[in-house]
Amino acid sequence: MSEQFLTRTRELIHKKILAEISADSLIDQAMRYSVLSDSKTIRPALVLASGELNNNLTKNSLITLATAIELIHTYSLIHDDLPCMDDDDIRRGKESSHIKFGEANAILAGDALHDLAFEIISTDKDMNDASKIKAVNILANASGAKGMVLGQHLDIESEKSKENIDIKSMKKIHTLKTGKLIKAAVEMGQIESSLNKAEINMLLEFGSKIGLAFQIFDDILDETGETSELGKRAKSDQKNNKQTYVKIVGIDESAKIANKLLDESINLIDELRVRDKIEPLKSLAKFMVNRKS
Amino acid sequence: MSEQFLTRTRELIHKKILAEISADSLIDQAMRYSVLSDSKTIRPALVLASGELNNNLTKNSLITLATAIELIHTYSLIHDDLPCMDDDDIRRGKESSHIKFGEANAILAGDALHDLAFEIISTDKDMNDASKIKAVNILANASGAKGMVLGQHLDIESEKSKENIDIKSMKKIHTLKTGKLIKAAVEMGQIESSLNKAEINMLLEFGSKIGLAFQIFDDILDETGETSELGKRAKSDQKNNKQTYVKIVGIDESAKIANKLLDESINLIDELRVRDKIEPLKSLAKFMVNRKS
Repeated sequence: MSEQFLTRTRELIHKKILAEISADSLIDQAMRYSVLSDSKTIRPALVLASGELNNNLTKNSLITLATAIELIHTYSLIHDDLPCMDDDDIRRGKESSHIKFGEANAILAGDALHDLAFEIISTDKDMNDASKIKAVNILANASGAKGMVLGQHLDIESEKSKENIDIKSMKKIHTLKTGKLIKAAVEMGQIESSLNKAEINMLLEFGSKIGLAFQIFDDILDETGETSELGKRAKSDQKNNKQTYVKIVGIDESAKIANKLLDESINLIDELRVRDKIEPLKSLAKFMVNRKS
Repeated sequence: MSEQFLTRTRELIHKKILAEISADSLIDQAMRYSVLSDSKTIRPALVLASGELNNNLTKNSLITLATAIELIHTYSLIHDDLPCMDDDDIRRGKESSHIKFGEANAILAGDALHDLAFEIISTDKDMNDASKIKAVNILANASGAKGMVLGQHLDIESEKSKENIDIKSMKKIHTLKTGKLIKAAVEMGQIESSLNKAEINMLLEFGSKIGLAFQIFDDILDETGETSELGKRAKSDQKNNKQTYVKIVGIDESAKIANKLLDESINLIDELRVRDKIEPLKSLAKFMVNRKS
């Protein structure tokens, strides 16, 4: 079920991206190369699945928001893969952007994807301006100096630490680096929500919990998966001396924590009045902690 | 006159920045370090001077927009200074961000400034949502893959060229790399404009011409200025084998072209009905092609 939903999401997103990014310059090509790759498109799928709970935004606008979040996520991967950061040479099953296009072009392609996320929100044909500004705010806030960027910084800093950091610091890093953007995806689907405040809060809490679970499962996959299956180098965390849940509490305990978060997150959305519509969200959540890549 | 205007602009922008960027993390500190430095704040001053032609936006909103464009400009400088790009170790009279904070943190601080530009527009207290979205659109469009980022890419590419590029290609690079954001500054000041379409077009044409003149004068300063006065390494263009107006047509002809563009740009705004209010814009334009740094 979620596999199909993800495949359909990827098709919709890629169609939008092809319409938004030309192939005129090398930068355009580098942008396309990274964002049209074999991504799981989990964040966009969360936008769509969240939006399906109530139909206040048009499908086109949901696709705009889903694409915007994929652009932000992709720019962050390009920058994170750089030699001075995680130094990863494989991403989504092919050469990282800086390997393929050189470091300067990779940084610039990332910067341009970053801009494009905000630009496509601004030019969406259906959303009203208030909704657009909400989306800009959610996205900028989740990805900036109090969100994803801070998480990436703390993540890199933690590599210098000779001893393991405590689990609370670890949770903070994962929440900032990955959780905030996952939560933002769920929130973006509710920009013109008909749900009440308590329900929206439950949804956001769902986003937070599943976002953390997703990153913990990522730590496990990095340790247990194969490069060919992951589409990125296996054991990259170990190589970088990265602090991970696996390093701190081991694989079994990490899996236990991730599954507990998954259960809690599903319990939260089971409480919603619209529970006849939560299937896509629920099956996405399950996929996020039981995937192979 | 323009010196005072720039000093006042700098004070207003820095105050806003101090309110928007905490000093909690190293990323916050790196953001502050670059953006609170001894910048000329020409782009923000253009927003304010353009806005003074008609008072549709509140002063606070103009300051928001002026700050947003300075954040974008500053993020671009941080990334442009990186070793894989222009490899500049001095900026605004002090160590470049990557020298001071390391490459990874410099890239991240740039990314966070990039987000913050859009975030402060989204949280402005006075502007209506339609104006905010216009601002987001202007800024994303001017700085992305069809604007500043493309200009920086072509600029770096041109360094590989053994022969001089033609003047048309040179103009294209400068227009994209510098002109578009300067024009955007003028445009942002007119977001709720009471001027008619013809007048706005004249203002935008003013922005284009003065933006190009500004970058041509930058080429001249790079060749004739001193590092201590410029606040960045003199003769950096030569070192990087960069294509510049000076390299292609020489200093005298470059100065002639810049001054011709200046005259044309001033003629354009002299035509405006609000010409009793154009003094700040006019004197800024003159400063832009007769500055010392």
